[in-house]
Amino acid sequence: MRFLSDNTASACPEILAALGQINHGRVPPYGEDEWSMRLDRAFSDLFGTEVRAFAVTTGSAANALALATLSPPYGAIFACEDAHIVTDECGAPGFFTGGAQLALLPGEHGRLTPERVRAALAAHPTHLHSVRAAVLSLTQATEYGTAYRRKDLTQLAESAHEHGLRVHMDGARFANAVAFLNCHPGDITWRAGIDVLSFGATKNGALAAEAVVFFDRSLVKDFEAHRKRAGHLLSKSRYTAVQLLTYLESELWLRNAERTNHLAQRIGRAAGAALLHPVEANEVFLRLGSERRQQLRAAGFEFYDWGPEGRGEARFVVSWDQPEPDVQALCQALGRL
Amino acid sequence: MRFLSDNTASACPEILAALGQINHGRVPPYGEDEWSMRLDRAFSDLFGTEVRAFAVTTGSAANALALATLSPPYGAIFACEDAHIVTDECGAPGFFTGGAQLALLPGEHGRLTPERVRAALAAHPTHLHSVRAAVLSLTQATEYGTAYRRKDLTQLAESAHEHGLRVHMDGARFANAVAFLNCHPGDITWRAGIDVLSFGATKNGALAAEAVVFFDRSLVKDFEAHRKRAGHLLSKSRYTAVQLLTYLESELWLRNAERTNHLAQRIGRAAGAALLHPVEANEVFLRLGSERRQQLRAAGFEFYDWGPEGRGEARFVVSWDQPEPDVQALCQALGRL
Amino acid sequence: MRFLSDNTASACPEILAALGQINHGRVPPYGEDEWSMRLDRAFSDLFGTEVRAFAVTTGSAANALALATLSPPYGAIFACEDAHIVTDECGAPGFFTGGAQLALLPGEHGRLTPERVRAALAAHPTHLHSVRAAVLSLTQATEYGTAYRRKDLTQLAESAHEHGLRVHMDGARFANAVAFLNCHPGDITWRAGIDVLSFGATKNGALAAEAVVFFDRSLVKDFEAHRKRAGHLLSKSRYTAVQLLTYLESELWLRNAERTNHLAQRIGRAAGAALLHPVEANEVFLRLGSERRQQLRAAGFEFYDWGPEGRGEARFVVSWDQPEPDVQALCQALGRL
Amino acid sequence: MRFLSDNTASACPEILAALGQINHGRVPPYGEDEWSMRLDRAFSDLFGTEVRAFAVTTGSAANALALATLSPPYGAIFACEDAHIVTDECGAPGFFTGGAQLALLPGEHGRLTPERVRAALAAHPTHLHSVRAAVLSLTQATEYGTAYRRKDLTQLAESAHEHGLRVHMDGARFANAVAFLNCHPGDITWRAGIDVLSFGATKNGALAAEAVVFFDRSLVKDFEAHRKRAGHLLSKSRYTAVQLLTYLESELWLRNAERTNHLAQRIGRAAGAALLHPVEANEVFLRLGSERRQQLRAAGFEFYDWGPEGRGEARFVVSWDQPEPDVQALCQALGRL
Repeated sequence: MRFLSDNTASACPEILAALGQINHGRVPPYGEDEWSMRLDRAFSDLFGTEVRAFAVTTGSAANALALATLSPPYGAIFACEDAHIVTDECGAPGFFTGGAQLALLPGEHGRLTPERVRAALAAHPTHLHSVRAAVLSLTQATEYGTAYRRKDLTQLAESAHEHGLRVHMDGARFANAVAFLNCHPGDITWRAGIDVLSFGATKNGALAAEAVVFFDRSLVKDFEAHRKRAGHLLSKSRYTAVQLLTYLESELWLRNAERTNHLAQRIGRAAGAALLHPVEANEVFLRLGSERRQQLRAAGFEFYDWGPEGRGEARFVVSWDQPEPDVQALCQALGRL
Repeated sequence: MRFLSDNTASACPEILAALGQINHGRVPPYGEDEWSMRLDRAFSDLFGTEVRAFAVTTGSAANALALATLSPPYGAIFACEDAHIVTDECGAPGFFTGGAQLALLPGEHGRLTPERVRAALAAHPTHLHSVRAAVLSLTQATEYGTAYRRKDLTQLAESAHEHGLRVHMDGARFANAVAFLNCHPGDITWRAGIDVLSFGATKNGALAAEAVVFFDRSLVKDFEAHRKRAGHLLSKSRYTAVQLLTYLESELWLRNAERTNHLAQRIGRAAGAALLHPVEANEVFLRLGSERRQQLRAAGFEFYDWGPEGRGEARFVVSWDQPEPDVQALCQALGRL
Repeated sequence: MRFLSDNTASACPEILAALGQINHGRVPPYGEDEWSMRLDRAFSDLFGTEVRAFAVTTGSAANALALATLSPPYGAIFACEDAHIVTDECGAPGFFTGGAQLALLPGEHGRLTPERVRAALAAHPTHLHSVRAAVLSLTQATEYGTAYRRKDLTQLAESAHEHGLRVHMDGARFANAVAFLNCHPGDITWRAGIDVLSFGATKNGALAAEAVVFFDRSLVKDFEAHRKRAGHLLSKSRYTAVQLLTYLESELWLRNAERTNHLAQRIGRAAGAALLHPVEANEVFLRLGSERRQQLRAAGFEFYDWGPEGRGEARFVVSWDQPEPDVQALCQALGRL
Repeated sequence: MRFLSDNTASACPEILAALGQINHGRVPPYGEDEWSMRLDRAFSDLFGTEVRAFAVTTGSAANALALATLSPPYGAIFACEDAHIVTDECGAPGFFTGGAQLALLPGEHGRLTPERVRAALAAHPTHLHSVRAAVLSLTQATEYGTAYRRKDLTQLAESAHEHGLRVHMDGARFANAVAFLNCHPGDITWRAGIDVLSFGATKNGALAAEAVVFFDRSLVKDFEAHRKRAGHLLSKSRYTAVQLLTYLESELWLRNAERTNHLAQRIGRAAGAALLHPVEANEVFLRLGSERRQQLRAAGFEFYDWGPEGRGEARFVVSWDQPEPDVQALCQALGRL
């Protein structure tokens, strides 16, 4: 019973079926096919405002391309020290921007607080010798499976804009945040001041499809040149686009997220005092110690140890295709410990 | 009837079916699934030597990652002035290598000649002020649909190695070259001195799958770090790997290439004196003038104008899924002109 | 008797004396000293228009920083295949721009022709897959010691501007061109359409001082950030600035160039039929064959072999501090050969 | 009375005189002059071991070039959050390395502790998704005018080497640390495990001269290519080299540092309880509040406010050419406050 990560999941049958349905004929490549051309419309409808949306195949590409569009090579990108762009993308932000520097802040349950960001931006030097504060990058839902509230996002974005920064949201698990907050997708993006969103679909049911969504369309600028020279403009672009369209139009995005959130919450409840962070997405972080981790593994559960060694922490992620009995078994096992 | 490019093509049903067959269960991500783990074996079997093979989703990524592994930031990459890496990848080689410089040579029918390369390498300065000659990049089949012979490849690679360069082959249409030369894939790669190959599958029947194949495994070095930080390591890697495995194991790669080569040759023969380059792959270049191009378009044929304006040249590419009647119609139309 | 290069020369006593005269007191660093603050004025006076001028210590830095300000990472920089930025700066343009690609054209006596540039720019693709034509870089005087005429510069710049490019001039030997053409410095720069000039002083009498001069001040943009992050903003900036001020205000720049041009012309005349390029600066290129080169070396003359081996070509450069008897001796020796 | 920074200082007359003494004749450029060729010897003698030493003109260049030699583009550079490379070089490390990421740790009085570094290195992930721990960069003397002891350096370097990192020392004020510790320069560099040192001379009496010193000569690798393509190889290299030679051979380096350390200590003592950090170099950090800062400024003292606004902190730096009466006056003024 595998709770390692949602990227171990398979792809939704609906999405695979869509690939089959469009698999005929010679159609324009490189984003000029009819499916790619529909992305702007589909994402504009989803968010309730006119956006530009571009497909890529990985979350790292979505994030790094967004950042390269928003930050000069001598820019500073403010982010939580636990953010994926900091810890798990092998330096992609530095590579794509041509050398921008990360300015890291500690989070609380993975979330940056408006106070801390405000203070950091106020303290960041503006003279020639320093990197320029350029981007604030927020992760929604965060690396610890928590979700920013609209109010906090609004304050964070306001601080950023006051200091001339742009706001990027890493939404690899964006659907989970929307499902948890039970809000309109626009409420926690453009209405809160987010400029660009990396909208994830892969973890939540696609094969390999993410979108970079520009709420401020004037920021698109040379995004397409960056995407092309990074090798992220697909020739047979229809197959990526149709994954995103199906994901949106079938409401898979929300349905899958609601399900995994719900299952994760069950695990969180079963874990009781071992729970480290509120369960606001499809991830559950527990302090188990080494003995209980061993017992769970002996019982057939797969999961990652997390955080500094010796603390005995563990991460469980529920995938969209996780069989409910897996979760049930895990809950029982946690109850027994 | 669309002859614009082979990247307008759909995907082979066998490959799409394979996606469906493996679409269940939670499996390790990031290249640690069983299909990705089989790539080394499959490509070693194909080439008759032990290789390392890595999947990516675009040809630009395959080329640029290979070059970034082979060239330092202050390197020079020798290539034909018509090569895809020069004209159609938006500066990807410069981006991925951190600034390497292209050293361009004219080709004959798209092919570099051993003489010219030998002379260029001998003349390239070796002092501190110059970029270092680092890589020779050859395209097989070339941008003009021609194929290098083994003998020429051997001489080209020898010159390169003598001067300390590594040899990269852009094989976006590698299968077409093998089909035309009717040789073992090893004959025009490692046996001829090629160090790293970008092995294309997308144009010839996959959705989005290319492999970077290292014949000299000591060169792999930090390829995986480059791939990761470029956002080209897919999380659900099984879906890319299985495309490559199906492409190889079903012999689709060769079968499709044989078919498109054959159809292209029919077009070439029908074109008679208008033919600009020998047809040794699935591309046909014709000098038609503007009137005949107009007539063909009026008759429903889609194709690109090619080369400098005013020369009246046109490119026709046969896709793996091109209906034979399209080709027949085109041959008749060309005959009538 | 050393004719290897003008960068073997010493520094003008006037410039060294100026260093001594300002060597007291604690003054603002990083370009905020009074001498650095006077650069804009001094160069504006020299050129007869309002400019921005920034000091750096090397010609490679001046060129690469100018190019990084003018070209995006996915830009193309058009230049003569013999240009210093192409052959002698170890890939600095690619490094500073973050990967821009060089688009090289052959020159005639080191000069690009308006026809060739016009044709190249017209032929350069404007689609997403290609690097964007961004900069035309001209060298004045050229690597072969020839000078562009104002008329040609005007046509070259017009073509560039029509296609949306900016025009950079590598003026490592700019003074020699002005001396030869006997024109106002503005005539062959901003009045001819040049946007940014690398103005050399080191070869012609400074210790280590070059200026980047922006004729279009709106282009300065983030030049200062690029200079700083490249380590080219000097802390004790007064010492570089005062070299430039002395060089300009004492008319050393023109006097030295007139002298070296004159001496080079004497050598050129003495060489007779061996002369390869018109002598329009302080460099003389001769076809001597290997025997005559050996004889000259045996007679105590130092110079570089030039061009492809076997052609027997040689380059002689006159330094600002070259003793006249060196030149006299060389002329006699050439006469005797 | 200016205590803003030691880079406001003039140059030592001995060094200026040396420029004059070598200012004749045409000599080889680009580091092949006799003075540049003597650098290895001079630094080897200074450090008591065979080193390679390379001249550059700025501390940012020295640091960034050293880091680019030691870190791959996907590397992590561990440093104190107050380090100059982090706060005052406009992203130079990211630029020169091609995107390496800074991993920042808090210091105590500007010094990293062995415990903290050990823990950070142990916790840094080694999987493919993370940047690779590549370099530990230490500043000696630190940004807060404190000096690492040999014992701590040894432990820091050991931890770094155990995890496969290389150790860089930013020695912009290296002489001050040696003067304070009253030790052999080798004791706090190679004998303690430092691999590469940025050896500063500019602040302490040169015009513009720093050296990159490799204690492990196998690390030099492509340093010279990096220096060249960054525009930091000076053509008239003799003038930079002779600054360094004079600085070393006349013992100016130590004499100046002893003087400024001594004067700074007097200021520190006069400041009494306002002193924030031990005075172990030529910098004094005081907590004064806004009123006292105003009084000092009204009395003619120039200095920078430091640290977060509202804390009322100030930095005073003693330059090598600081008149003793300036210091006396400052001490008296501080006494009166």
